[in-house]
This record gives sequence, C-alpha cells and structure tokens, in this order.
Amino acid sequence: MCRWAAYRGTPIPLEQIVSAPGHSLIEQSHQATEAKTATNGDGFGIAWYGEHTEPGLYRDVLPAWSDCNLKSLARQIRSRLFLAHVRASTGGATSRDNCHPFVLGKWSFMHNGQIAGFEQIRRPMEAALSDRLYRARHGATDSELLFLLALEFGLETDPTGAFGAAIRFALAEAARAGVRELVRFTAAFSDGETLYAIRYATDAHAPSLYSAPTCGNAGHCLVSEPFTDTQTKWHEIPAGSIVTLRAGGISSARFSPLRVDAVRVAEVA
Amino acid sequence: MCRWAAYRGTPIPLEQIVSAPGHSLIEQSHQATEAKTATNGDGFGIAWYGEHTEPGLYRDVLPAWSDCNLKSLARQIRSRLFLAHVRASTGGATSRDNCHPFVLGKWSFMHNGQIAGFEQIRRPMEAALSDRLYRARHGATDSELLFLLALEFGLETDPTGAFGAAIRFALAEAARAGVRELVRFTAAFSDGETLYAIRYATDAHAPSLYSAPTCGNAGHCLVSEPFTDTQTKWHEIPAGSIVTLRAGGISSARFSPLRVDAVRVAEVA
Amino acid sequence: MCRWAAYRGTPIPLEQIVSAPGHSLIEQSHQATEAKTATNGDGFGIAWYGEHTEPGLYRDVLPAWSDCNLKSLARQIRSRLFLAHVRASTGGATSRDNCHPFVLGKWSFMHNGQIAGFEQIRRPMEAALSDRLYRARHGATDSELLFLLALEFGLETDPTGAFGAAIRFALAEAARAGVRELVRFTAAFSDGETLYAIRYATDAHAPSLYSAPTCGNAGHCLVSEPFTDTQTKWHEIPAGSIVTLRAGGISSARFSPLRVDAVRVAEVA
Amino acid sequence: MCRWAAYRGTPIPLEQIVSAPGHSLIEQSHQATEAKTATNGDGFGIAWYGEHTEPGLYRDVLPAWSDCNLKSLARQIRSRLFLAHVRASTGGATSRDNCHPFVLGKWSFMHNGQIAGFEQIRRPMEAALSDRLYRARHGATDSELLFLLALEFGLETDPTGAFGAAIRFALAEAARAGVRELVRFTAAFSDGETLYAIRYATDAHAPSLYSAPTCGNAGHCLVSEPFTDTQTKWHEIPAGSIVTLRAGGISSARFSPLRVDAVRVAEVA
Repeated sequence: MCRWAAYRGTPIPLEQIVSAPGHSLIEQSHQATEAKTATNGDGFGIAWYGEHTEPGLYRDVLPAWSDCNLKSLARQIRSRLFLAHVRASTGGATSRDNCHPFVLGKWSFMHNGQIAGFEQIRRPMEAALSDRLYRARHGATDSELLFLLALEFGLETDPTGAFGAAIRFALAEAARAGVRELVRFTAAFSDGETLYAIRYATDAHAPSLYSAPTCGNAGHCLVSEPFTDTQTKWHEIPAGSIVTLRAGGISSARFSPLRVDAVRVAEVA
Repeated sequence: MCRWAAYRGTPIPLEQIVSAPGHSLIEQSHQATEAKTATNGDGFGIAWYGEHTEPGLYRDVLPAWSDCNLKSLARQIRSRLFLAHVRASTGGATSRDNCHPFVLGKWSFMHNGQIAGFEQIRRPMEAALSDRLYRARHGATDSELLFLLALEFGLETDPTGAFGAAIRFALAEAARAGVRELVRFTAAFSDGETLYAIRYATDAHAPSLYSAPTCGNAGHCLVSEPFTDTQTKWHEIPAGSIVTLRAGGISSARFSPLRVDAVRVAEVA
Repeated sequence: MCRWAAYRGTPIPLEQIVSAPGHSLIEQSHQATEAKTATNGDGFGIAWYGEHTEPGLYRDVLPAWSDCNLKSLARQIRSRLFLAHVRASTGGATSRDNCHPFVLGKWSFMHNGQIAGFEQIRRPMEAALSDRLYRARHGATDSELLFLLALEFGLETDPTGAFGAAIRFALAEAARAGVRELVRFTAAFSDGETLYAIRYATDAHAPSLYSAPTCGNAGHCLVSEPFTDTQTKWHEIPAGSIVTLRAGGISSARFSPLRVDAVRVAEVA
Repeated sequence: MCRWAAYRGTPIPLEQIVSAPGHSLIEQSHQATEAKTATNGDGFGIAWYGEHTEPGLYRDVLPAWSDCNLKSLARQIRSRLFLAHVRASTGGATSRDNCHPFVLGKWSFMHNGQIAGFEQIRRPMEAALSDRLYRARHGATDSELLFLLALEFGLETDPTGAFGAAIRFALAEAARAGVRELVRFTAAFSDGETLYAIRYATDAHAPSLYSAPTCGNAGHCLVSEPFTDTQTKWHEIPAGSIVTLRAGGISSARFSPLRVDAVRVAEVA
C-alpha cells in the first residue's frame, strides 16, 4: 500500500503538500507506528507541471524522509498541478523505474493498489501495447502497465473509458490464466490541465481516497489518506468514483467499468 | 532506535542471522506495525571477519530489506564473527559514513542508543581525539565518536575501561555545556577474535540486549531484540553489563562506569 | 564500450583482478586519458562462484572506482571462478538491472559490444522468450536479452550453438526490420564449472579479447583489454573464437555462427 | 580537477548551461577522450536562487551524465543566478556531503583546485571555525572548509578579504606543519544577488576561468573551461583576479592575498 497526494490550483510550493511538518505526505508516511499500514520507504517521486507541456519528474529509491534533495526541491519548486508518491513495494524491485509517478509526454500517473496474480498475466498485458508504448515501458510494475494500457485504450480522449478498458483487460487475462480476478485501483493522473483521480476495486476494499480544498482555498488536494492536521476538512470519495479537478472546480462521476449504466455526474461538496 | 545482531562461533553464512525469512534482522526490522519501535530504514551495514586482520565492510543508505546486493552477499559470505546493523536515524543524515558498523584497523563497532544534547558537546569530544583518530572520523554520528574515543582511551587493552572512560567523558562535557547528562548505550564491538557487547544507560532505559546459542549451538548470537522465531531461547542481558564471547564461551561482567566497585564476573546460562 | 575481466583457477581474492593498484579492471577503467575508449563509469558488477550452485552477485550504479564497498568485498571474497564488469552505457539507463553480469540460476554472463538498431528489434527478440525467461528479464539491455535468448536456444547443452542461434536470430530480425545487420559480441559466461568467452563480430571490428595465465599460474584470466602491468603475457584471441577454460586447461574453437563449417579446435599457447 | 559553470542574468532554464547538448557542463564533462583532464564522474551539484533567500540545492553521487533527475530538473527550473559543478575527486570519498556547491544560509560556493597536504593541516583549519560554523561542516573536503573559513573571516562584508584571509591561513598552517605551501583556487560563490569568481594560485598553475555573455546577452556565464560551441566568445580571466557580476554588469579586480597593494578595478570586455 503506497500513499500519494495530488494538487491542482493556484501555484504553491510543493513542500506545502509534500514535506511540511505536521501535515504532509512525508510526515505521514514516516510515522509507521501510528498508521494502519506499513512504512512507505521503497522510493518516492514527484511530477509537477511548469512552463513545459511535459511535467518535471524527480524519483529516487531512498525513503522520501531521508532525501535532503527532495526537501530542498519541494521548497523551491512552485507548481499549479503536481503529483507526489511514496512507495511501499509489494515485492517488486526498488529501482527508479519502478517509482511513481510514471510520465509519458504530457501525461503523468501514480497508483495505490494491485492486480492479483500480476506476474501470471504480465506478458499478455505487455503484448497488448503498440510498439510505441511497448518501448515506453521502463519498469516492471503493474501500475506502469495499467498507465500504458490506458494510453493505448484512449486516455487522451476518454479517461474513464480508457482506464475502464485497461481494468477489464487485466481481469479478462486473469480469467484466461485462471488466477484470481481482482483489481484494486486508486490512482491520480493528469494531462497538465485537468487532474483526475479514480477510486475503484472489484471487491469491497478499494484503497481510500479523500479530497479537500487546501491552502486557504487556493486549490484542491486529493490524497490516499488524510493528513494529520485538524484544519483541513477531508471528504471521502466513495469507491467506484472518478473525480475531476478542472479550472471550473471539482466534480465526481461513477466509475464502474464492469457495468453498462450511463455515467451519472455529481457535485462534490 | 536502531537494531543490530552479532555472531561468534563456527563459520556460518551471514544470511542465517541477517536475512533468513522468519527469524532475521531484516525480517524483524521491516515489520514496523508489529514492533514497538519505528522502522529501521535509514541504511544498514555488515562487518565480518575472514582471512584478513581487518574486517570486510558493506554499508549502504537503502533500507536493508530492499537491497538485493545484501541478500546475495549474506548468502555467499560465511564468517566466524560478524556484526550487522539496521539504522533508524534520530536526525543525522542518511549517508554511508553514518551507517554502522564503524571499522578502524582490526576493530569494528556498532551501537543502539544516544547521547543527549550531542550536537552541543560534539566539538569538545572530537577535540579529545589524537590526530590519528581525528583523521579516522568520517561521519557525524555520536556512535562513531564514542568508538573513536574508546580507541583513544585504551580499547586495545581494556574494553571495559575504555568505553567507561568515553562515556564519562561525554557526561562531563554535557555537564560543562549545561545539557542533560544522559547516555544510552547498547553496543557490540570486536577485534576479530573476541566479541563484546555492552548494555548500559545512565537512566533506567538501557536499550535491550539479548543473547542466545544459535545455529544448533554452532555459536552465540547477541541481538538488540529477539528474533521472532520460537525455537531460539533468548537470555536478556541486564542493564549495566558487558558480555564477552571468546573461544572459551560467553561470560558477563558488570559495566558501571560511574562506580568505583570491582568488576564482578558471572557466567551466563 | 565496456570492459570486463574473468578468472578461473585456484581460488584467489577478487581484488587481484578487480581492484589491485597498477594492474586491475578498476585501475584500467579510470585512466580515461590514457585509454583509447571513454571512461567506464556507468555502473559495475561482479559475479562469483562459492559454495552454492548460483553465483553471488554485487552490482551498483556508481563508477567502480568510487565504491568503497566493492573495494572491501574484492579484498575479502576469494573465488575459483568470477566475472567482473565496468559499464560504459551506449544510451541505456544507469540502473542496477542494466549492469552486468547478468545471472540466472547457475549461469552468469557479461558482454562488451552491441546490436545495431537494437531498439527496433527488441520487441520480437523479447517475444522469442519462453514465459519463464520472459519473467527473468529485469533490465532493458541488448546484452541481457542475448543471454536470455542463448538460454532459450540451448545454452545448457551447447554454448556455441546457443549463442550462435541468438546472434542469427538478432540478425534475422534486423533484416526483417530493415535496420543494419550488425552484431559485435565479446562476452564471458559460466555455469560455475567452465568459463567461456566469445569474440565475434559480423564486421571487422570484434571487440578485443585477451587471455593470460595469472597469479603465478594459479589460474587463467580473460580480459577485454590487457592490464597495464608488464609481467603478464597476454595472448590475443582472434575474432571468431570461443575460448573454454576447464579444469583440464584452456582451449579455443572457431565461433562462426553464419557458416556451416565444422568447428576446429586449437590449443592456445 | 573539477569543472563548474555559473550564471547570473535574466532567468533562464538551468539546462541551457547544465545539460543542453553540444555546449553544456554535462556534455563537456563526459567527453573524456577529447578533454585534457580526466572525466568528472564523482558526483555533481546545482545551487540556484529562486524566491527564497537561501538557494535550492540538488547534489548526488552519480556521474551527472547518467542522472535522469538532473536532466528533468535542469529543464524545468528557471533561475536568475545559479551554480553547477561536476566533481572529479582527488581522493576524498564520493558522498553527497562532499559534492559542490556547498550552501550555508544565503551563501553558495563551489571550487576547482586544491590545498597541497590538506590532510596534514585539516585539523587546525577546522579548529579555526567558530562553533556555529564548525557545526555547519558536513563533509571532509578542503573546498567546504575554505568556504566556511571565508564565512568566518568576513565573507558577508568583504569577499576579497575573506577568501584572502582563508588562503593565507591555509598557507600559514602548511608552513607550520612543514608541508608544501601551495593553494590553487578557482571558485565561484554568491549571496543570491552578486555572483563572484576568483582565479588564483600560489604557483603558475591557477585553474582556468572564463567569462562570456550568454543566451543572447540575457546574462553572463562564468566557467572553468569554455564550452565546445563556437558561438560564445569566451574571455579568459587572468590568474590573480576576482570577478564580480552585479545588476550593473561585470567587473574584475586583482586578487592577490599575499600582497599589500591596493586593489585595482578593471572592466572586463
């Protein structure tokens, strides 16, 4: 179980979300004894949008809390839209290529969750990639592969449909391989303009997702777990949702890739 | 609070103590949620004696559990006497030079504990080193400095006296600087023949220390906390002790650097 | 252009080949100004056989010359058969998974050379792997892939045939993709008993390969370039050769994967 | 011999100096075969001024050319004043704390050069630091120590005088210790407003220093060696100079710490 945080709004220093004492991703991830889950010490990463179309990317294999570079970067870099992730590997190697966020062109992506029996279905999932995206595969994680499959399946024009198709594809391959058909998927991703987050699982255990206005309403924050400060009013996103953060505000829709229903849009308080 | 393990006896692969599933230093250190203390992810190190007078040394800044090199080395290297350490920094930087064990010539040393107000008394402590030992200071930890001071104060001929003098020196400098006079010190060290461990504190909270015959009585193991297997019968070393492991077996004596009493030797069951 | 050295014979400390001042792989690789090729600073690795069937493996992304761990390990570890490699990347990422040697089960492999247009033919080459070997692919280099393909094509029973088939396969895919059909391949590999080396290229520029008795005839050394000491008498292995080091001594045979000739065995002086 | 580059002017992306193909610090440092000096692969660092008083700092122990994080950061970060350094160690350990630039408060500093016999005079040089600056010593290099001594000797108000005093102090200690009295010192440093560079040596071999208007006269660049592009018109700074880059332009004065002469100011073309 990894943890992540994402922000969209008026440009703020990354440190306000990433490393500020008392209510940040790093602070939270290190206090292993107070948390329900294990320490997230298997690498970290930040992707942030600045003046270029493609985001900046800084990832390393150290625990986030012991990287003095991260602390300085998070203090100096100001961004209107960024993703930050601390990793707790479920078995994969600790390498930069396996650290989130993953970036391709203007898109960035990070994930907390799992595909059951991934090693059994990794090969057919990789085979479904076009040559261009096959070459863009750098690591060995299920997360990066879901991101690439979503790009393959139309992320550019239909995020809901693309990640739905990627998840259905993984489940179909699991069925074919005779392994447990289980996907848990709480992810954030962006094209540099809109920030999306999905909370979903095929069982009752979708990894948590919360949203809140932050930094004095300068913007919105999406996190896998609430920070420990008491000021921010966190709103739990229900399982089976896709949240969209645009210039116009935050909205939420049902994300149910296995159903045929029409998508119902709802406002988030 | 770091954790460490040390072994002396018939040569065994390091993995039996360092990385074997179910009852090793790495296994133990990672299970943060089940342990009383926080995760030990701020670097690790092993020092082992082979055919040379000086020990081999392998240290790195990653968490021990994610270093595939360590796993392979611990499986391939067999040693009759070794020290292994996983670090939980209390503030110092995560760098190789701050990772235990520390090695100088034939001596190796590792530590779990602290000197209160160390930053206030670091300079006079470093000033007490001879030029040779001043040059041997590579990191910034209180642990390395206590090791060098013990070498300064006669470790070669009188381990009990040397670490006693080092601790008294630190306490005297604390008094002079007006900071809290507190040392907690549970350490292991060796000259390649004898393995020593000290458990001591100036207050009632000496970091724990246990010993046990291990690997089918092939040797003895000293650890800061018992492993989680149920077979090994751990013996708690009382605070204020120095344990000595020699060819002739294990013995224990009182370690009370602030008293004038004679040293009393006792056998450990 | 990487550089490597391999040894088979009476167990010697790795440092005699890897890091000894004046005539070692590290020494050689660092003296960039005196050498014909660029510095080899993109990671390094050693694989050595001990008491287990599978070799030990230590790889890291630093330049070999600045890794104090490597220096200590090379001094402490003694082995009867080992491979050592310093890497100069031709574009691939600097990650542990891309560092040589590569190891699978009892086999180890390292390489100096290239496949022209590799990125264009990487996918069909990976597709030729069985599921088991596909899962064993951890990095992104052409070198690792040639190793896995040789395993696929019968390395266990016929090293000459297996690497010949792997090279022919790469050339066939290059032809199909319309890229330049060029393979340069000077490699060493072992099953823990026999040490093999191949020097080959489809053009006139097979990367160099030398052999010499070493350490007072305790064993034989194979290197991509001679060390700088003047005592060792290096024998240049001609292009189109496979060298075999067994208990019985060193022998050489023609390696010409594109010909149908019978293999001619010759003794190396 | 390290290499460095510094910039002051209209904010530009760091990549224009640090990593742009064909005419950057990284490009230059990697082409070992074409350069007079050895490869600079023992770590790197950048310090840049943004909206805070203290600069951002990013340093790591990899060769600069293989760090994908550096490439992304240099592309995303735009700064009006920055320092960049690639290190070639002359013996000291490769650790982040030994990488340039060094930063304390608003000041940054980087260096190419050496103090002969430094290990013999390191201790009295460290002893000359006040407690505050003694605590700010994190690494083991002569460079960091000259920076801290300059701060001790009045860098805040008189850069010429402060570095002159630091160099005289080092020479006096060398004389006292009976080691060769030799300092070579080509350094850049800044308080976030003004960028300074000094070229000096006690012998005839002051490490080189060049300046040039850059980026279409958006600013000025100071480098230890000219970049390889042919457009920039480099001006060699003579030995015994201190160059000052302010809002008002570039000026140069004599830097002759062993003389009593008045300082003579001259304009740089």
